[in-house]
Amino acid sequence: MKVDEIVVNSSSHSYRIMIGNGIRSQISTFVTKAYSSIFIVTDEHIADLYLSDIQSGLTHEYVYTSILPAGEKTKCIEYYYQLQTEAIKYGLDRNSLIIALGGGVIGDLAGFVASTFMRGIDYIQVPTTILAHDSSVGGKVAINHRLGKNLIGSFYPPQAVIYDVETLQSLSEQEIRSGYAELIKEALISDELTFRAMLKTDLTSLSAEELQEHLRMGIKVKASIVEADEKESGIRKFLNLGHTLGHALEAELGYGSLTHGEAVAIGLLFSFHISESILSTHLPYDQLHEWFKKNNFPLIIQTEDIQSLMMKMKKDKKNVSKMIQMVLLQDIGEPTLRTVTDKDMERHLNSFIGKLVTK
Amino acid sequence: MKVDEIVVNSSSHSYRIMIGNGIRSQISTFVTKAYSSIFIVTDEHIADLYLSDIQSGLTHEYVYTSILPAGEKTKCIEYYYQLQTEAIKYGLDRNSLIIALGGGVIGDLAGFVASTFMRGIDYIQVPTTILAHDSSVGGKVAINHRLGKNLIGSFYPPQAVIYDVETLQSLSEQEIRSGYAELIKEALISDELTFRAMLKTDLTSLSAEELQEHLRMGIKVKASIVEADEKESGIRKFLNLGHTLGHALEAELGYGSLTHGEAVAIGLLFSFHISESILSTHLPYDQLHEWFKKNNFPLIIQTEDIQSLMMKMKKDKKNVSKMIQMVLLQDIGEPTLRTVTDKDMERHLNSFIGKLVTK
Repeated sequence: MKVDEIVVNSSSHSYRIMIGNGIRSQISTFVTKAYSSIFIVTDEHIADLYLSDIQSGLTHEYVYTSILPAGEKTKCIEYYYQLQTEAIKYGLDRNSLIIALGGGVIGDLAGFVASTFMRGIDYIQVPTTILAHDSSVGGKVAINHRLGKNLIGSFYPPQAVIYDVETLQSLSEQEIRSGYAELIKEALISDELTFRAMLKTDLTSLSAEELQEHLRMGIKVKASIVEADEKESGIRKFLNLGHTLGHALEAELGYGSLTHGEAVAIGLLFSFHISESILSTHLPYDQLHEWFKKNNFPLIIQTEDIQSLMMKMKKDKKNVSKMIQMVLLQDIGEPTLRTVTDKDMERHLNSFIGKLVTK
Repeated sequence: MKVDEIVVNSSSHSYRIMIGNGIRSQISTFVTKAYSSIFIVTDEHIADLYLSDIQSGLTHEYVYTSILPAGEKTKCIEYYYQLQTEAIKYGLDRNSLIIALGGGVIGDLAGFVASTFMRGIDYIQVPTTILAHDSSVGGKVAINHRLGKNLIGSFYPPQAVIYDVETLQSLSEQEIRSGYAELIKEALISDELTFRAMLKTDLTSLSAEELQEHLRMGIKVKASIVEADEKESGIRKFLNLGHTLGHALEAELGYGSLTHGEAVAIGLLFSFHISESILSTHLPYDQLHEWFKKNNFPLIIQTEDIQSLMMKMKKDKKNVSKMIQMVLLQDIGEPTLRTVTDKDMERHLNSFIGKLVTK
């Protein structure tokens, strides 16, 4: 299988995304700068599986490692500060490199540490989940605040993304689902044909070739949008399709009890629901619902507390002047931004929850 | 008295520095963008003196305030997180503005919050100390780590700096001294004539005109350097003249027991001492020492623990590959960077401490 290369032009520098099978052990060929030291940040699950491959692939004299608990709860101010402390104690300097080895949690956390350690040092993303194809590209790094997801962070692009699809073989069914929700989202932003092709995918019998192809598609959609709008002042907001409700659900249920992608899947259906109502467009709601269901996505909103959900949606970073702003679809491939009043939002949420239950 | 205007061109935008007498009450004329809300961050001392002037000068609907304890200890992760929490609770969004009203501690802390709240919102510096002429210009924002000063931060330029020299009338003798150490540093980086003129200043009988002139000089030196090297990869490091030992002294004695400028004054003398030794240049060590002494700078190093000081100097962000890098002077107006081995540094420190005691 070949190695795919996608170049992303950020405002400060260009960086390469390499996608291939088994490329984690050749990491030195991608880390060309003479770094004074390297600090690998990973979690306990990934450390067991792939840490030694990365370590043995590096030829640098000073290589340090921090192994954190797995899970969304790690993306918090406490571990952020702990990593800063370790970086100082290991003697990292401005010419050091951080390698984020893991899923989106590790990528976001280690990337945010890199963006603020000594006012910013280099870092490389080595994603090990499908979901992380989204978070590892585009330079959005962050930690969660207890009042909302990703509320503290930076725009800080990596020096490279090394994507070894072989590491995706160890993913659970739930993690595959979670990643595919974002891939579906990117297909919806892209065009009808891509979306229809994605709906043919059976997640229980996914080939490595299929996966690499879907990742390339998702990353290309993402890369072209972040190149056009790095700081999310315009079209980058489209990538939040499905995320307004998605993030609120994650926060409401406690991060981790629903995966990010599972929450986004519900959010995508909600964006269909509300788009049909507000923009009078006809979208393949039933087909998307069917595909999610067939692939075992949990499609219920386990809360009675609409007001609490709404409060959380209002904390979304896209909002302006305390009104909820949502990404909707005029058609597949045609995302658009709309402000929704509290009263309308409550009505849409109630009818949506009803619709989910009866399907 | 006229209002001075200096424009600084950063990589992301240009911003104005306004210096004038009583301009704090006209703040609305400088805050032209239609911000959705404004969050003023200040400390308890400054709040008593100037907060109401700022509040009454703003015509915006949503203006919130956070009043923090005064002092360097506030520049820590705990208050950083508290401000994030308040910003979320007040419903700040990406179109909100933070106003940092206070000295360098407030400017650095509130600026770092602005740089990372929802991945970055606008902020304005309203410095109320002489020392803050340095920190408010150039976009370096940070908090302290318990293992070292300013180790966590960003490069994130403000939208404007509003410098009301009238607010400097309430400064203590110690705060005036602290600010003038940085002004002396800028004169040393600039040229011999400026430096000689500064040595004629008597801090006990400072006129408002003199002060405004000195601030303009210091800010111009600073602005021209940060324009040429925003991210401190080259000449911006020159601004750290006197700071390698200065920061270590502050950390060693506990932030706050020696003011930043008082520590920098000792650091400047040390840079003279070590420059004369390593570069064989002749610098007016005695005149500078005399001026500091006449103006009541505390010129002793209150520690016997050279090893601990050295450890702290090695944590400096300018260091590469675990060696101490220092800014030295080939001559006044000619700063240069040199790496100093541990052995040499220990020798220089010992002879310098001896020299300080005997003068």
